[in-house]
Amino acid sequence: MNNNLNIANNVLSAIKAITSKTTLPLSEPVFAGNEAIYLKECIDSTFVSSVGKFVDDFERNLEEYTGAKHAISVVNGTSALHIALKVAGISSGDEVLIPALSFIASANAVAYCNGTPHFIDSDEATMGVDVDKLKDYLTFSTEQRSGFCINKRTNKAIKAIMPVHTFGHPVRIDNLIDLTNKHNIKVIEDAAESIGSFYKGKHTGTFGLMGALSFNGNKTITTGGGGAILTNDASLASLVKHLTTTAKKAHRWEFIHDEIGFNYRMPNINAALGCAQLECISQKIESKRMLFERYSSKFNTFKDLILFNEPVNCKSNYWLQTIILKKDNIQLRDKILQVTNDASIYTRPAWQTLNSQKPFQNSPSMDLSCAESLYKRIINIPSSTNI
Amino acid sequence: MNNNLNIANNVLSAIKAITSKTTLPLSEPVFAGNEAIYLKECIDSTFVSSVGKFVDDFERNLEEYTGAKHAISVVNGTSALHIALKVAGISSGDEVLIPALSFIASANAVAYCNGTPHFIDSDEATMGVDVDKLKDYLTFSTEQRSGFCINKRTNKAIKAIMPVHTFGHPVRIDNLIDLTNKHNIKVIEDAAESIGSFYKGKHTGTFGLMGALSFNGNKTITTGGGGAILTNDASLASLVKHLTTTAKKAHRWEFIHDEIGFNYRMPNINAALGCAQLECISQKIESKRMLFERYSSKFNTFKDLILFNEPVNCKSNYWLQTIILKKDNIQLRDKILQVTNDASIYTRPAWQTLNSQKPFQNSPSMDLSCAESLYKRIINIPSSTNI
Repeated sequence: MNNNLNIANNVLSAIKAITSKTTLPLSEPVFAGNEAIYLKECIDSTFVSSVGKFVDDFERNLEEYTGAKHAISVVNGTSALHIALKVAGISSGDEVLIPALSFIASANAVAYCNGTPHFIDSDEATMGVDVDKLKDYLTFSTEQRSGFCINKRTNKAIKAIMPVHTFGHPVRIDNLIDLTNKHNIKVIEDAAESIGSFYKGKHTGTFGLMGALSFNGNKTITTGGGGAILTNDASLASLVKHLTTTAKKAHRWEFIHDEIGFNYRMPNINAALGCAQLECISQKIESKRMLFERYSSKFNTFKDLILFNEPVNCKSNYWLQTIILKKDNIQLRDKILQVTNDASIYTRPAWQTLNSQKPFQNSPSMDLSCAESLYKRIINIPSSTNI
Repeated sequence: MNNNLNIANNVLSAIKAITSKTTLPLSEPVFAGNEAIYLKECIDSTFVSSVGKFVDDFERNLEEYTGAKHAISVVNGTSALHIALKVAGISSGDEVLIPALSFIASANAVAYCNGTPHFIDSDEATMGVDVDKLKDYLTFSTEQRSGFCINKRTNKAIKAIMPVHTFGHPVRIDNLIDLTNKHNIKVIEDAAESIGSFYKGKHTGTFGLMGALSFNGNKTITTGGGGAILTNDASLASLVKHLTTTAKKAHRWEFIHDEIGFNYRMPNINAALGCAQLECISQKIESKRMLFERYSSKFNTFKDLILFNEPVNCKSNYWLQTIILKKDNIQLRDKILQVTNDASIYTRPAWQTLNSQKPFQNSPSMDLSCAESLYKRIINIPSSTNI
């Protein structure tokens, strides 16, 4: 027990050694650009709501930065996931593969479509989908029927997969897409945590049919609350825009809505913040990558844990810096969380795996031993760009 | 035909006669208070997202202004309606009474709960629910079974009603609540258009179990995008807050979610705008009420239409000023819309009735002759506070 406390104190000292600050939030935004100027412009123009120049600019700038042909901004990352699933055709009874090691929004988005999340395991190398394990699982647990991938146990169609680029680290998305193509499973990338993360030189969220970004306050760039859908498909982009704007048909004055739509459009005032943030994204990511190096110099002597390094072929945004306890050291986790948070050095564990969350305890899943082990061993440490 | 054009030109002249402005939007926001200052404070504090002082302040100020015991701010009016229905227990198969003469969000919110909107008629005096007609309808078309109001035709429970205070004019909410209480139907007031409107001295949205407000850009006060739920019931308020914040249980660091929640919390930056706007609401409403008087002086000589005056017992916010064509003059509507919009004096018709919208054409309904007539006869004319 005393040894646990010693190690926890050493972790605290390692974090504190890289900065003169005495309080470190987990991930706070930094506004060092044109944020206040653009907000003032919004007020002066009176365009603060769902139509305005900043919404258009933000979408065009996201397209330029990510390389996606189309970006559609929305109120938050959850709504981005929801609409992407909807547009991908997920409806009542459909199953969607999602990593058990993810934020609840991944599973909720499937539930909003009346679909069922089907949980899959992660690997140690990426903290995201274990592609090799998934390959075996799909081979043994599913069969093709009428062009659909059928879960042999539930007899339902597995229509999509939402891989998460966990804490900003890309999964092996090319291998994953090769695999799921063979099984007729659509890929929607949950890139909520990975703006600024590239796999083999290409931005995350642009490999699958669609990708979802988040600009929550704790993300790499923020719009207050916000998200976006990325896609290279013009007709999907058009459908996303239609569904996020109450499915209202173009008419000079009549209100005609041709399907059940949503009020998910990002307001101009939030997009104004996004424009200013996006102008500074390269510096932000450079800071986050340097922060990894600074932490690395302190943590490389620890025997009981590793500091997570970006996987091969990846240039990660290091959204949240992550330490992972070795497998025989899980008892350290709560002690480290306690010692650091008590000292106003804010840290947090990974999310409890989704299969253990009350609303999803009866959802189908594969063996989740790695995700469950990672949950017990992951600690995110302060990751702001201004540390 | 020439006569129609003459009348349309007279309407245009009547509108233009009250102002020196040559372009009049339908309803644009005015930022004459502390908007820019509060936004700057958000940026300087770095609190722009779902936690922050402005969110708390905005909710407390809404409570003070409306007299509701609890106000919970959310991302928009649609999400307010959705969560209110969810908290009221609406789920698969339930019917919810809503006026056919309303914006599509009213019906969509019911659909999000997998419920069915059941359309009811409006009256000429309020443009909202015709309480007397509803009384007869409920008597003949429903019966009580196990404490529920059962639609005899569909055999489904009518669990709630969402009366809309149309264009800011209160319905006879006290009579309506007396009636629906007798039939075990819960009342959720759609007060999206009626912040600042009072019925018998009490703020709209505070009579029913819950009320929903909207702060969209075209509303009386705006947060860019935003809404709020009002209620006097502490346990409902607590459930609303829980469901709008991903149903995450309080814990120092663990992520535990005990039901399917939503990401509907209003960001601090939007609430900052709301705080500044709410400080000026009395002047805004005074301007809108005076605008009615100014229009009145011009329109009182028209024989083919009336300018809508607030119903008895009401002090309305006059969110959107409304002219209603007399019943034998419906052919005038499109001509007036065309002549005014061509002249950059922006006007619009009422929403096409919800029973005629493609996703809801098969929904149950009562006779809707008044709503359908009003749809053909209503024109909203420029209503901003700075005309």
